[in-house]
Amino acid sequence: MNNVQTLKGFRDFLGQDARKRQWLKNTIATVFERFGFEPLETPTLEYEELLLGKYGTEADKLIYSFEDRGARRVALRYDQTVPTARIIAQNKGQLPLPYKRYQIQPVWRADKPQKGRYREFVQCDADIIGTNATAADAEILAVYAAIYAEIGIESLQIRVNDREALILTLAKAGITPDNTFSVIQSIDKLDKKSEDEVIAELESKGITAEIAQNLLQMLEKTSISEKLQSIIDAAVAMGVKKESLVFTPTLARGLDYYTGLIFEGIVPEYESGSVGGGGRYDNLIEQLVGVPMSGVGFGLGYDRTLEAAEILGKVPAFSSSAQVLVTIFNPELASESMKVTNMLRESGVTAECYLDATKKLDVQLKYANAKGIPYVVVIGPDEAAKVVVKLKDMEKRIEKTLTLIELIKTFQNA
Amino acid sequence: MNNVQTLKGFRDFLGQDARKRQWLKNTIATVFERFGFEPLETPTLEYEELLLGKYGTEADKLIYSFEDRGARRVALRYDQTVPTARIIAQNKGQLPLPYKRYQIQPVWRADKPQKGRYREFVQCDADIIGTNATAADAEILAVYAAIYAEIGIESLQIRVNDREALILTLAKAGITPDNTFSVIQSIDKLDKKSEDEVIAELESKGITAEIAQNLLQMLEKTSISEKLQSIIDAAVAMGVKKESLVFTPTLARGLDYYTGLIFEGIVPEYESGSVGGGGRYDNLIEQLVGVPMSGVGFGLGYDRTLEAAEILGKVPAFSSSAQVLVTIFNPELASESMKVTNMLRESGVTAECYLDATKKLDVQLKYANAKGIPYVVVIGPDEAAKVVVKLKDMEKRIEKTLTLIELIKTFQNA
Repeated sequence: MNNVQTLKGFRDFLGQDARKRQWLKNTIATVFERFGFEPLETPTLEYEELLLGKYGTEADKLIYSFEDRGARRVALRYDQTVPTARIIAQNKGQLPLPYKRYQIQPVWRADKPQKGRYREFVQCDADIIGTNATAADAEILAVYAAIYAEIGIESLQIRVNDREALILTLAKAGITPDNTFSVIQSIDKLDKKSEDEVIAELESKGITAEIAQNLLQMLEKTSISEKLQSIIDAAVAMGVKKESLVFTPTLARGLDYYTGLIFEGIVPEYESGSVGGGGRYDNLIEQLVGVPMSGVGFGLGYDRTLEAAEILGKVPAFSSSAQVLVTIFNPELASESMKVTNMLRESGVTAECYLDATKKLDVQLKYANAKGIPYVVVIGPDEAAKVVVKLKDMEKRIEKTLTLIELIKTFQNA
Repeated sequence: MNNVQTLKGFRDFLGQDARKRQWLKNTIATVFERFGFEPLETPTLEYEELLLGKYGTEADKLIYSFEDRGARRVALRYDQTVPTARIIAQNKGQLPLPYKRYQIQPVWRADKPQKGRYREFVQCDADIIGTNATAADAEILAVYAAIYAEIGIESLQIRVNDREALILTLAKAGITPDNTFSVIQSIDKLDKKSEDEVIAELESKGITAEIAQNLLQMLEKTSISEKLQSIIDAAVAMGVKKESLVFTPTLARGLDYYTGLIFEGIVPEYESGSVGGGGRYDNLIEQLVGVPMSGVGFGLGYDRTLEAAEILGKVPAFSSSAQVLVTIFNPELASESMKVTNMLRESGVTAECYLDATKKLDVQLKYANAKGIPYVVVIGPDEAAKVVVKLKDMEKRIEKTLTLIELIKTFQNA
């Protein structure tokens, strides 16, 4: 027989797991729509040429690429920024600017699978492209915060910093331009590593201990830049809670293309890392597709945000598969059960009718238990004659005889 | 510069197009949930071995497959039936039976792109696996019909037939078993071709004109089988409109694995073909993964159903990107505009704040027009001092001065 396995690093989502993911997607999309962001979906496959060289040499090795049957080199979507840049290049002059778009789709990376890291995972990005106004930076913070408010995660902290100011401090501390990005990558580890460890790492990169220590002290003392303060003020005017925005002068972010605001989201109760982040990138779109255009945006950690919502009890308890199973007493009474099921559904109740009239009642009750269906309806000859039903509460193990109207009301009030 | 193109046969979906697709997906999922179907999502990539040989020799050539970086032969999802069969094999004894699942995901086929045929397209499948009860066949018809009712397509016709009865008629007409499936494929074309054309095609397959003519006459005269009648009766008990179920003895369906009920959906106002179909397949799961299990299900034509809904005016007019654009009068008044935008959003109104305080009002109004935003709010120094706003109706070209509460009520009542 075949290799009946799921590939390593890939996941199946059944039942409730799939429902939770769909709930998160819809919740996020609702917020983006409220802010006037446009949805975008791009194809799974792109010309490999579009993707190669865009993410760095190491990342190029993680791109799933192959030759298609028409001898074209194609690649699976590696992120959502490059396809969006393609859209901007293809629709130059057509898209109203700024182009505010959100995109929630899977991406693929041939990375080593490990806890929390998959080869197929959903990215959730929002970007405002085509303006360098600080109000755009503020709106990016506002929509990010609003998503967590919508989920019900009130504890979200957004660490913010100004990459431009950070680079200035590095220069003042004596870091040469060719070392700047490498130093930023080390500083970015300050929330996971101790200061001593980061200093040791900087020393391994040829920075003297003195310069490294001095740099960290200077960073901690950096005061907020005028621009960053104006972004924060605007974000507060847009509804972000002031106390959730935390100026963090040591925040660095590990990507090289940021040019201004940088930020990341932290849910204090969730300890596996930041739940997303982003910033301003005023040269990236030009680098990617040759169209000079400013941008600011974020990637929201989809799996982590779902985990955080679960830890905080914010994922709704979905009504398993159905609220009620209508059993079939015998083949002659099957159509009575079907009609009652239909009546329930038309009243907005999720209802299943058991499908095999030859199975005994206890088999049907076991099915309800296995699927976590909390109520069961029985319609025997007596009930059918009187046009009533028996309703069993599977957990409390009690049953009542109800008219059809009473039955519907039971669930509509539940 | 790079090859900034979308691959042939692949599509980008921007703004309203993406919204329509999401609306259809959510509408369909709502109905499946109401019937107690479980959502399922499987990975984009599978072991190639799982897919090869499952769809026939011709189809094998359309599978996107390649060697991944770990020297595994992998393939992109070609349909949703084979991955579902894998799930059943992997979860044998774990899944409550019957397993009722729905799956709405893209699939990839290296087919020749043409009008209405893409290399990446969404499939929407529902199946009931693990029972041969006729009520399952009926429920498949009922959930299929309920989806179109939910969309608002009242004219749906479901053509139904019994593949077993069809094969019996073929045998009676003198078609030998080795010709049966080939003849079925020709008969399946009766809704697109004339009888003469189908007879000519049968002759080209070595069937005499006499047998072919006789066969078509016999088919047209076939009366409904007892089993099919009981499926129809049960479907009606489950809420399907009797007149929408049309016994069609010449309906054949082009797939070889059907063993009982076969059906297809037609929207009379939509002339580009059936909007989906399915049937019972009692041997398929065993053939695919070695687990003997009955099944019945359908594939709903996602693109075609969306097109049909558009033709019939059933796709909701989404409130473009936002209902209202709050303009920024000057940098000093920017935060007033941001606060009003936030207030609107918190009242459930989709609202955009213009982001660049340096742009003149006419640039801001052009942005509203380009995005199809129907209302614009202006807050100048006079309005700010009086805590009121000016509301412009972009279409009627009228404006009113409103208090903030009046502003919110305008949109909440809209």
